[in-house]
Amino acid sequence: MAAVMCEKSSPSPFPRALRLSWLLLAGLMMVLPAAHSQDGPKTTPQPAIPVMPTEKDSERAAEDDHKLDSLNLMMFLFLLVLTILTIWLFKHRRFRYLHETGLALLYGLIVGVIIRYTSNEVVPQKPVSQIVPVSSIDGEPPANIVLNVSAGEYLFSNQGPYQEHQVQVVNPELSKATFDPEIFFNILLPPIIFHAGYSLKKRHFFRNIGGILTYAFLGTAVSTFIVGSVMYAFVLIGAAAEIDFSFVDCLFFGAVISATDPVTVLAIFHDMHVDVDLYALVFGESVMNDAVAIILSSTVEGYGKTTKAFDGIAFLTAFGNFLGIFAGSFGIGAVMGCFTAVLTKFTKIREHPLLETCMFFLMSYSTFLMAEALGMTGIVAVLFCGITQAHYTYNNLSEESKARTKQLFELLNFLAENFIFSYMGVSVFTFQHHQWKGGFISAAFLAIGLGRMCNIYPLTLLLNLGRHQKINFNFQNMMMFSGLRGAVAFALAIRSTSSEARQLMFTTTLMIVMVTVLFCGSLTLQMLTWLKIRVGVDEDQEMTQPFEAVDTLLPPPLGDGDPPRDGPEYRYLCAYLEDEGDAQVDSRRRGMRYESAWLFRVWYNFDHNYLKPTLTHAGPPLTETLPACCLPLARCLTSTQAYENQHNIQEDSDTDLILDGSELSYGRANSGNDLTATVVTTPTNATPTLPKAPAEEDGAEGDLGLGDHELRTRARVMLTMSTGVPGKDSSHV
Amino acid sequence: MAAVMCEKSSPSPFPRALRLSWLLLAGLMMVLPAAHSQDGPKTTPQPAIPVMPTEKDSERAAEDDHKLDSLNLMMFLFLLVLTILTIWLFKHRRFRYLHETGLALLYGLIVGVIIRYTSNEVVPQKPVSQIVPVSSIDGEPPANIVLNVSAGEYLFSNQGPYQEHQVQVVNPELSKATFDPEIFFNILLPPIIFHAGYSLKKRHFFRNIGGILTYAFLGTAVSTFIVGSVMYAFVLIGAAAEIDFSFVDCLFFGAVISATDPVTVLAIFHDMHVDVDLYALVFGESVMNDAVAIILSSTVEGYGKTTKAFDGIAFLTAFGNFLGIFAGSFGIGAVMGCFTAVLTKFTKIREHPLLETCMFFLMSYSTFLMAEALGMTGIVAVLFCGITQAHYTYNNLSEESKARTKQLFELLNFLAENFIFSYMGVSVFTFQHHQWKGGFISAAFLAIGLGRMCNIYPLTLLLNLGRHQKINFNFQNMMMFSGLRGAVAFALAIRSTSSEARQLMFTTTLMIVMVTVLFCGSLTLQMLTWLKIRVGVDEDQEMTQPFEAVDTLLPPPLGDGDPPRDGPEYRYLCAYLEDEGDAQVDSRRRGMRYESAWLFRVWYNFDHNYLKPTLTHAGPPLTETLPACCLPLARCLTSTQAYENQHNIQEDSDTDLILDGSELSYGRANSGNDLTATVVTTPTNATPTLPKAPAEEDGAEGDLGLGDHELRTRARVMLTMSTGVPGKDSSHV
Repeated sequence: MAAVMCEKSSPSPFPRALRLSWLLLAGLMMVLPAAHSQDGPKTTPQPAIPVMPTEKDSERAAEDDHKLDSLNLMMFLFLLVLTILTIWLFKHRRFRYLHETGLALLYGLIVGVIIRYTSNEVVPQKPVSQIVPVSSIDGEPPANIVLNVSAGEYLFSNQGPYQEHQVQVVNPELSKATFDPEIFFNILLPPIIFHAGYSLKKRHFFRNIGGILTYAFLGTAVSTFIVGSVMYAFVLIGAAAEIDFSFVDCLFFGAVISATDPVTVLAIFHDMHVDVDLYALVFGESVMNDAVAIILSSTVEGYGKTTKAFDGIAFLTAFGNFLGIFAGSFGIGAVMGCFTAVLTKFTKIREHPLLETCMFFLMSYSTFLMAEALGMTGIVAVLFCGITQAHYTYNNLSEESKARTKQLFELLNFLAENFIFSYMGVSVFTFQHHQWKGGFISAAFLAIGLGRMCNIYPLTLLLNLGRHQKINFNFQNMMMFSGLRGAVAFALAIRSTSSEARQLMFTTTLMIVMVTVLFCGSLTLQMLTWLKIRVGVDEDQEMTQPFEAVDTLLPPPLGDGDPPRDGPEYRYLCAYLEDEGDAQVDSRRRGMRYESAWLFRVWYNFDHNYLKPTLTHAGPPLTETLPACCLPLARCLTSTQAYENQHNIQEDSDTDLILDGSELSYGRANSGNDLTATVVTTPTNATPTLPKAPAEEDGAEGDLGLGDHELRTRARVMLTMSTGVPGKDSSHV
Repeated sequence: MAAVMCEKSSPSPFPRALRLSWLLLAGLMMVLPAAHSQDGPKTTPQPAIPVMPTEKDSERAAEDDHKLDSLNLMMFLFLLVLTILTIWLFKHRRFRYLHETGLALLYGLIVGVIIRYTSNEVVPQKPVSQIVPVSSIDGEPPANIVLNVSAGEYLFSNQGPYQEHQVQVVNPELSKATFDPEIFFNILLPPIIFHAGYSLKKRHFFRNIGGILTYAFLGTAVSTFIVGSVMYAFVLIGAAAEIDFSFVDCLFFGAVISATDPVTVLAIFHDMHVDVDLYALVFGESVMNDAVAIILSSTVEGYGKTTKAFDGIAFLTAFGNFLGIFAGSFGIGAVMGCFTAVLTKFTKIREHPLLETCMFFLMSYSTFLMAEALGMTGIVAVLFCGITQAHYTYNNLSEESKARTKQLFELLNFLAENFIFSYMGVSVFTFQHHQWKGGFISAAFLAIGLGRMCNIYPLTLLLNLGRHQKINFNFQNMMMFSGLRGAVAFALAIRSTSSEARQLMFTTTLMIVMVTVLFCGSLTLQMLTWLKIRVGVDEDQEMTQPFEAVDTLLPPPLGDGDPPRDGPEYRYLCAYLEDEGDAQVDSRRRGMRYESAWLFRVWYNFDHNYLKPTLTHAGPPLTETLPACCLPLARCLTSTQAYENQHNIQEDSDTDLILDGSELSYGRANSGNDLTATVVTTPTNATPTLPKAPAEEDGAEGDLGLGDHELRTRARVMLTMSTGVPGKDSSHV
């Protein structure tokens, strides 16, 4: 792993620090004396006058380096093992106050302390730098020079123009525990983000797509500007002390810190089976705002390079850049996802799951690389690639590959996430250029609170205007509380720590991540209780529970124009729903379609009629949907499976796209009864003679094939709503 | 992925070469113009007088570098995708003449040619090196110096003592397609080797352990010395031309090239269901001789550093080193494997398969790192860790984790292997320090042929003295033919290419790998026919086929003292085997035990009575096997499952360890009838009242739980043999 370590320093014996912390971790004491004796007694002081390094010395140094690198990486792996074992214990004991990421962070902190305070305060062996005037070189300086010093000929390589911060006194033992920052962005983040896209529960995501996009785009922009402005105000009154911190720096910090990562909160939501819409909103926002924050920060950075003061043209250019990069990254991700879908559809590679999984993996990582090579944002491309893969490719995979790909990315996500968090913990103590400015850090906490507030509350107000099912105040508070910062903010902040301003940003980000993860993470359960958020919503159970159960959940009828609960219409609906069942949903969907937003209707039709049949074996055959002139092409693209589908009702979760124009939530109804009542009470064009639809496995969701159930349940709920539901907010805890 | 690229060079526009080859591969032409226009028109010639680089320039250069790195890695990923698709096509069409690794190699070659002959022949922008006499620096030269040249202040960092080969004119575009050689050893090889250990079919491996260890240890040593001596003879008559090539270099080359890697041959063996013993011998030898060759080469290297001439003491030290490193690496691997087994046994982590799989993965990779950190050989440790994990830990894993871990390492193995082979293909053309010495390369082919010959034939002669079932001449020829070289030899050779001798070794190794993989690989099927090797041995079917089928496979009785086929003893045995079935095996095993080698008997008893019950839920409870004084400890260590086992017969594949003292092979019998006849015809201590044994899942084998079947079948075979079998070799094709 020598290659991934960033700073190669002078040879040194096994550092006591690492050895100690490692001892603490692994408890494998019996093997250590050997390592120790091999590397010389630790009590030998560094020679005061260094000896001339020979070739053998330098080889030995490289060997020591390699050993140290191995030891170092091993330390992190053992940290992860320890985290895993503790987390198992927590899960076993149903202790939910600390999430695995929080635990990884804590263990990292402990190890960081040990490394820091046991490491030898080595004075670097060689003088750090020396200015040598050599005016004999004209023009461009050479790539390498050989200095003929008194100790012999030495090779020096050109590191570029000299900047003072390049040469700082560093403790080589501590910098050994440091990885190349690009590792985070190029190796550890992509699987995390891809997994988010691939495991996205499309059903609930698309139901709340309006809200999610609003929070992600508008919200992140608002948060960036609020945080930037507040920070700049504090900088003006001296919070950053003597560090030069421009407004653009403040904006950049705002963008970096606006990437929320409520993995702790979501894990608890998942465990507690919290309300699905709240889950979708928090999850969707966090996934999408990572993408926005990443592009926003690079845009601000680019903007800062061209101009320091405010400039209208530059601002517009930056905005154009933002849109261009977002569209480009989105496009690459989507195209690569579709390309994989085509490959898996038109080859019989599914007969060889290993090959199929490998191809899936390679195509997905290529997406990242392609976007980076084209100057787009790989992380964003990978996110949309993940969503596309889940939507199309997943349908074409063999059963084994479905399991394999899900498990593979789950594993990579787990490892990468916990590695980042334990690294964060360690780097609080091993990063050597921290800028501890208490004022700035406190100001930052204030600013992110304010930024989050200006994101959630006003935007929700706006959203609620258009939503049938309002986001109630407790949900808003919970969303406000879910603004944890995590891996993405850290990766963005650690990417560049060359200037003092950036170092200050890094220190502040680290503090914010730590406090929000540990503090908010451990308070989530408590918060759910305080805010009376409904938990224990077993989605599956809710969908399959008997009709009566849904019925009794609801308050007695209150509306004036609604049909009475025991009236003839009620009984008709009951009978209808019980007897006719699934066969009705398609026609109901058709009847309902006009209620959805126009854009979604267009998209849904296009996707359902053209994209899905082209890219997967699902959907109606293209020979039906394409105009007659394209018939040969259509025949070419349609698989035999699709013809079979023709006679079946396709129940895919996209149905929600259409159904959810009315933004229903089962069991908890707030308003909009008029709409749903109309729909449910007009089932005249039912076609009960159609065969029962096979549950299409659509997307990498946990609830595959539940479409029918959900639709039926929802119809029941709609029915019950139409029989009378209070118009006010009611959250059942 | 910037971090994994080794040489950072001057900024350059997108190289035409990479773009072209990538175009060829991906066919995604629509996205390229954007990339191109972004990086400046390619027709612009390099400025003759370079301008002074500013900070913005260097940032941009880093950005370009990153893009180029991404493009490069993407090229390899697309190569792999292409390989996968082609391989699928081959599998689909049952075309077996080219294995995926050979294909990866071929595609790599094609892309290498394109990169090579389309790359701009750039003259490096900056003068490569310049010797500057600076006598003002006394003693130790500084880590960094700042040169005050006329173009401004530049930072130069110390690269160590100057050696001429460090500074060579390189084509930056080509060196971009080059990875850090340590990547191969530290990242790509470990999963390949671990997978070999984890997927090892213990049953057949242990049956042939004697032969495998002989070929691996003695054979590799013989091969190393023969190759080394032959090469030295050729060097003395001038095969290496003007390159300085010492005897130690020759020996090192011998060690490097002695690591066989018949992955192509094994894949065909697997597809064709070739004789299981031949498979086990070829597979086992290749796995173990990798370990031996790796340690041997590092020992020779160390030996070469201390002495150039032959020195008895140094030789003994080297031998001691070899043994020490082997034992140490073996120990680390085994201990870590057992530690993982303990962790999975005594925690209930199996309830969370994700955590379990992560821990398994982390512990396995930690083994590599720990061995490296302690100065041992990580690859060897990982091999034995894999075997231990398969033998103990695998039994404790949950069903899901069993599948997950197998699939994960299968995937990693596939990706790593094909990446290495496609990289090999590319580097034939992109490696810039090839030493094409036709004489040396031809001599090397001769030497490895001779080395392999002196390995296989004399050692088999030796082995056959002690084997009941001889390795026949055709098998020997097939083993001789299976001496392909592959990933390990390549990784060893690319590790250091600093001196000209090493570069010559690298070039030669590359040629040998290519020729053996492509030539021998494609001839394997033909060879199987020529050598009349029995194929279509469906292990499962063979074990479960009716008794008559086995019977008719065998030639009519010929022996004189054997009981007649239709005599009373024969009928008794038939009845016995049919009626009593599995319940007998334990007692038969007991009766047979004395025939096994003493060492294996000791090991088997220890493993079966103490290790297995301690580390897994299998085997007899420790409360039974440990002496009474250890009762509290035994109670502590024994799981409830073990008590249940107490009343069952444990059919694990280790039984073979004991049974296979007689080295039987089903259906093909050569000699040793006396032994087996005695065994089978004494089933008097049978205990038919015992309940039927549950098939214990033991080891990551494909044939889990077949123990009973195999034993029964074998008993049948033994019976049939005892009724009369010819003493001469008979291979059924």
